[in-house]
Amino acid sequence: MIHTINYTNGQLSIIDQTKLPTQMELINIDTVQDCWDAIKALKVRGAPAIGIAAAYGAYLGARSITTADPQTFQQEFRAVTAYLATSRPTAVNLFWALERMERTAQSQAGEPVIATINRLEQEAIKIHEEDAQTCRRIGEHGLELLSDGMTILTHCNAGRLATAQYGTALAPIYLAKEQGMQIRVFADETRPLLQGARLTAFELMEAGVDVTLITDNMAGMVMKQGKINAVIVGTDRVAANGDVANKIGTYGVALLAKAHGIPFYVAGPLSTIDLATPTGDDIPIEERDPMEVTHGMWKQTAPTGVKVYNPAFDVTPHELVSAIITEQGIARPPYEESLKRLFEV
Amino acid sequence: MIHTINYTNGQLSIIDQTKLPTQMELINIDTVQDCWDAIKALKVRGAPAIGIAAAYGAYLGARSITTADPQTFQQEFRAVTAYLATSRPTAVNLFWALERMERTAQSQAGEPVIATINRLEQEAIKIHEEDAQTCRRIGEHGLELLSDGMTILTHCNAGRLATAQYGTALAPIYLAKEQGMQIRVFADETRPLLQGARLTAFELMEAGVDVTLITDNMAGMVMKQGKINAVIVGTDRVAANGDVANKIGTYGVALLAKAHGIPFYVAGPLSTIDLATPTGDDIPIEERDPMEVTHGMWKQTAPTGVKVYNPAFDVTPHELVSAIITEQGIARPPYEESLKRLFEV
Repeated sequence: MIHTINYTNGQLSIIDQTKLPTQMELINIDTVQDCWDAIKALKVRGAPAIGIAAAYGAYLGARSITTADPQTFQQEFRAVTAYLATSRPTAVNLFWALERMERTAQSQAGEPVIATINRLEQEAIKIHEEDAQTCRRIGEHGLELLSDGMTILTHCNAGRLATAQYGTALAPIYLAKEQGMQIRVFADETRPLLQGARLTAFELMEAGVDVTLITDNMAGMVMKQGKINAVIVGTDRVAANGDVANKIGTYGVALLAKAHGIPFYVAGPLSTIDLATPTGDDIPIEERDPMEVTHGMWKQTAPTGVKVYNPAFDVTPHELVSAIITEQGIARPPYEESLKRLFEV
Repeated sequence: MIHTINYTNGQLSIIDQTKLPTQMELINIDTVQDCWDAIKALKVRGAPAIGIAAAYGAYLGARSITTADPQTFQQEFRAVTAYLATSRPTAVNLFWALERMERTAQSQAGEPVIATINRLEQEAIKIHEEDAQTCRRIGEHGLELLSDGMTILTHCNAGRLATAQYGTALAPIYLAKEQGMQIRVFADETRPLLQGARLTAFELMEAGVDVTLITDNMAGMVMKQGKINAVIVGTDRVAANGDVANKIGTYGVALLAKAHGIPFYVAGPLSTIDLATPTGDDIPIEERDPMEVTHGMWKQTAPTGVKVYNPAFDVTPHELVSAIITEQGIARPPYEESLKRLFEV
């Protein structure tokens, strides 16, 4: 299986996720601009993968800075990370990774530029490698919530395509599979960009996991039919009080789960938890191009000129969240305390 | 504005709704087979419009029966209506219209075949004309629930394209418009076949109503933002206890409305209320081709061979229904009594 993000001998390449599931195409990312474009256009997406890509992007930017003066380098590098930070507003991993690269650069202040560039390359690789380990640990913790024969509903894609490996929401399912457990999955297709249909169904099928695709508006019906034992989703940002920003539609799924007495779990690395953001109301929500809705699947399916509202994310209030699964363990309400404790481990 | 179903000088034609919103194409329906195909393929859809089309289809079938023997005619006509009844299982208007045509034929037993055929033509025209009046009355009753400045969320298309005129769910909105009231509409796009995007947005824009298109999974967010004052949807069948079968996703919208304290209204003619069906559990739910989900918008958007669940309808339990708007007035819980009373007027 090809990974979402690959870095060998100084060459960064990613799976172009906008081409899946019909074409598996690796594209090279050679410049900061390439990286910004790939994040903006969702060629690379998923909060952890965005963080990894941005870290490499920052390194690519560093590599192209021509000055030999350490101080000028620092200035120009800050412009690189500031630029990359404008690619998407909601996923906090983006800012987390860029800040980490920024701190790495600052810790090299006064060192020769070439040494700093090398150090930044190592840091990007480290962020990348850590993510795979982090996801595996999320899977191990999440596995405690699963048992053989369960059926999980998931929304959007928080699988291996969204991370270095394993995924976040899907990590427990992959680990269950490794252990010979039978876990079935219902995947919401996740309009407008169909990450569930194109990516989640794709990667679970590739891994031999039993997956059934539904449209978003069928989630209520399958829950009512008793088909779903738990919901697991990823997240782009968790506020200090446990409010969860994730792909548009997550809030609705959480409400439906609550109405049917189904546990609603959120899985994400600590880098997604933003203690500096008090509540979900403080999370900026990206609005995207109306064309995503009116020209779904690249064919016009709505009247020309129709008014469209297209928020890419919504916020699920913490009351609807049964548990948050991280690499440091599982947080349960009240989240103000439990989330903070995770960082103290 | 062209009507969904048109009948002049013995020629039946319909708007091919699968071509909207980019092409407005009238197609002729010349045979029973044409009619069955058009209903099956959703070229004509919407419970009331299906009933009207089926009535004309039954007449087209009658017209093509070659026997002059009244008894043989009756037998062959029964085969025609039985065939048309197989086109779609959930909408009760289909069966209602066919039974009405059947009763008309039976009332002519022994009359010359040509007289019976003429009588069937008149009956089909009557069903058609009555529907326009019925929808207008639904609109008048529904208007009592609206006030100037409200914003309504609707799901699927229960507008003029789904009926002879005015629609059911949208009838109060058209009447409000006539009276100079400002009513805004949020239209769920309604996957998999996008009747909200293609049809509801189209017909409301054509009528100058302020409409905003959202994907189905945004309904929860716009409700949470306080943007929605009421939900109005159509229905394919209402059971005696008030359970409502309607387009897939309606159940989820009803649960979300309940969670946000927003009234959830259902609009439909009495011909949609099926007192012979005790509860929603007794309503057969049509499952449709997985290709509608995997090849949404006629482009492959899911992995080849993925398992798909594609129910076309769901059932909203009566507890979630604030009121049912009909041409005879508004029914409120408990529906066992209030629905029965509507038929006694």
